[in-house]
Amino acid sequence: MSKLPNIPTSIFSVMSQLANAHGAINLSQGFPNFPVDERLLQISERLLRENVHQYTPMVGLPSLLDKIAVLTAKNYKRKVNTASELLITAGATQGIFTAINALVNHGDEVIILDPSYDSYEPSVLVAGGKPVRISLNEDYSPNFNTIEAGITAKTKLIIVNNPHNPTGRIWTESEFEALETVLDKHPQILLLSDEVYEYISFTHPHISVNIRPKLIEKTIIASSFGKSLHVTGWKVGYLIAPEKIMNEIKKVHQFLVFSVNSLSQHVISEYLDVVDFKEIANMYVRKRNLFQELLKDSRFELLPCEGTYFQVVNYKQISTKNDMDFAKELITTHGVASIPISVFYKDATDKQMLRFCFAKTDETLIAAAEKLSRI
Amino acid sequence: MSKLPNIPTSIFSVMSQLANAHGAINLSQGFPNFPVDERLLQISERLLRENVHQYTPMVGLPSLLDKIAVLTAKNYKRKVNTASELLITAGATQGIFTAINALVNHGDEVIILDPSYDSYEPSVLVAGGKPVRISLNEDYSPNFNTIEAGITAKTKLIIVNNPHNPTGRIWTESEFEALETVLDKHPQILLLSDEVYEYISFTHPHISVNIRPKLIEKTIIASSFGKSLHVTGWKVGYLIAPEKIMNEIKKVHQFLVFSVNSLSQHVISEYLDVVDFKEIANMYVRKRNLFQELLKDSRFELLPCEGTYFQVVNYKQISTKNDMDFAKELITTHGVASIPISVFYKDATDKQMLRFCFAKTDETLIAAAEKLSRI
Ligand SMILES: CSCCC(=O)C(=O)O
Ligand SMILES: CSCCC(=O)C(=O)O
Repeated sequence: MSKLPNIPTSIFSVMSQLANAHGAINLSQGFPNFPVDERLLQISERLLRENVHQYTPMVGLPSLLDKIAVLTAKNYKRKVNTASELLITAGATQGIFTAINALVNHGDEVIILDPSYDSYEPSVLVAGGKPVRISLNEDYSPNFNTIEAGITAKTKLIIVNNPHNPTGRIWTESEFEALETVLDKHPQILLLSDEVYEYISFTHPHISVNIRPKLIEKTIIASSFGKSLHVTGWKVGYLIAPEKIMNEIKKVHQFLVFSVNSLSQHVISEYLDVVDFKEIANMYVRKRNLFQELLKDSRFELLPCEGTYFQVVNYKQISTKNDMDFAKELITTHGVASIPISVFYKDATDKQMLRFCFAKTDETLIAAAEKLSRI
Repeated sequence: MSKLPNIPTSIFSVMSQLANAHGAINLSQGFPNFPVDERLLQISERLLRENVHQYTPMVGLPSLLDKIAVLTAKNYKRKVNTASELLITAGATQGIFTAINALVNHGDEVIILDPSYDSYEPSVLVAGGKPVRISLNEDYSPNFNTIEAGITAKTKLIIVNNPHNPTGRIWTESEFEALETVLDKHPQILLLSDEVYEYISFTHPHISVNIRPKLIEKTIIASSFGKSLHVTGWKVGYLIAPEKIMNEIKKVHQFLVFSVNSLSQHVISEYLDVVDFKEIANMYVRKRNLFQELLKDSRFELLPCEGTYFQVVNYKQISTKNDMDFAKELITTHGVASIPISVFYKDATDKQMLRFCFAKTDETLIAAAEKLSRI
């Protein structure tokens, strides 16, 4: 009996492989193709020669935990307890899987907002939980009527993702207030807030759960240095959660992976002293604007992009094909890889939309846009 | 409701922390304290400057998969299919957890041989499975009568660990034959073979499941570059399993961690061209002999050590304390950290035994033995 009978290979693997096979420009899987900051490499070179090659402590390198506490205080004015509320994970994916598998018991229900990132549902299924998918509104804002209607006595967790992959939408202050009201009524429900794109917002600032005192005590926040520092291959992320919740997560983490790549943790710990997240944010503002400008006269219609490094488009003027077929055609015929939005929906709802990743060099974006504009 | 209500912090965290707090020589947690091979560092320095910082493919870096296939062919004359039978994991721990959580369904039983490594039981519990602990014989050989008696219609998996942590015992050929006979009768049962110390054997060669054709088709083998190459902090291991089983494991892996630290995979892939596992094996023969020689006149009684980098001792001539208390006293009063063997038993059976890790510099072993010999 398969644990995940209906779960296929992750779309990110499928599309990156297809892109490589056809030599297409890969705007599918979310990772940068520009060089890593020279300072990161220099710190790596130096630290390689130090005593950094054996296990770090299970919860993470102490100096990195301290730096995250400083960062959280600076950015969000939240004081986290380094020893009890932080956990370094092998990427945010491992953090999210571990949190879900530590907290969701057999038969528990977990509310996932559709469209959603593809790892949440399988993580819930592996935990023996029941994913309850609730549609976001047409503009991808949360619908609190349907969310409330979806809550039962078995609901254990709600997962929100903000800035939102794939649509780039960022929740507003009043939406967070509404969520707080709902959760107030259901004290058994925990919140998992996937904030891996926390530093990439365009139209209005990202509202982290870190700045919502009413939510903090029931929330696990997932963050990603891979995303924030353009080193997706390093696989270093972290979770923030109140001690009682974190204790349960640590229990699983210690037997799931025990600890995380040590050199990467040492390097990031030093790098956090010099990195300017504002600069990173500004770079992505520029990239988004460039990509939007480049596609302005194409037959793709650009949807609003408030954050993340993804741009969603619809191609209704170009083709009547479903998005999976069209995404494949785009690779094989036009040399550009994207992600079909239907994969983010429970029932593979086709909206004739694609997601492009613009965390790419200007040259790559220009070359891709040229191909896309010719269609 | 806690998923792991009775699971405390891993003993390896507890003892390493206690060792650090008291400035004790740390022979508890299994990791080397000698320098990493200079060649590994040089390869790292060079590759750092290349395009190695973004996600590798989900199953692992293709060149590393190829090298593992070469290694497996060379060492075990087993031809593994690179594309379908291998998976790079964030350490063997993540491989073992993932295999268990992909294959064990709610209510399935898993046979674990006591004493056993501490991650198996919690991994089974997270999967919703039922750990069935069966004692090894007094000499730590498997007892096939009790194993057979422990099998029910619900038994899904048997976990063996060979060379065995903590006792260092290595199964014999006839024991593998007996296991094959048992499994022949119960075709629903899979085997998980934890072989992370495969290159460290002393009295007779390690028998890998890779050389047992009758077992291969039902076995997941876990291996660890962290252990084999003295870089426990890199967190790179791998699984070998037949395609049908591996497909289920990949389904979980892709959402549990997605991929593994990229630089480490690139470096290990190159290093496998030059590393000589015989040399590593010889180094550990020397270390074991040195440590045994150093303790020969102490009041600790050395148990046989056939493989792994752990030496088990009993201290019956020294103290009547239970092993947890004695291990703590050894740290606080005598400055040497070890692992009490009771933690490897389901019911914390106290045999007044400790485990010492001898993957340490000669200086460290000499200093530790000096302290231990004075007791
Ligand atoms: C883990 S691969 C997927 C990367 C990503 O976050 C995305 O493309 O959405
Ligand atoms: C994952 S920390 C434990 C290391 C180890 O294998 C041991 O000490 O037995």
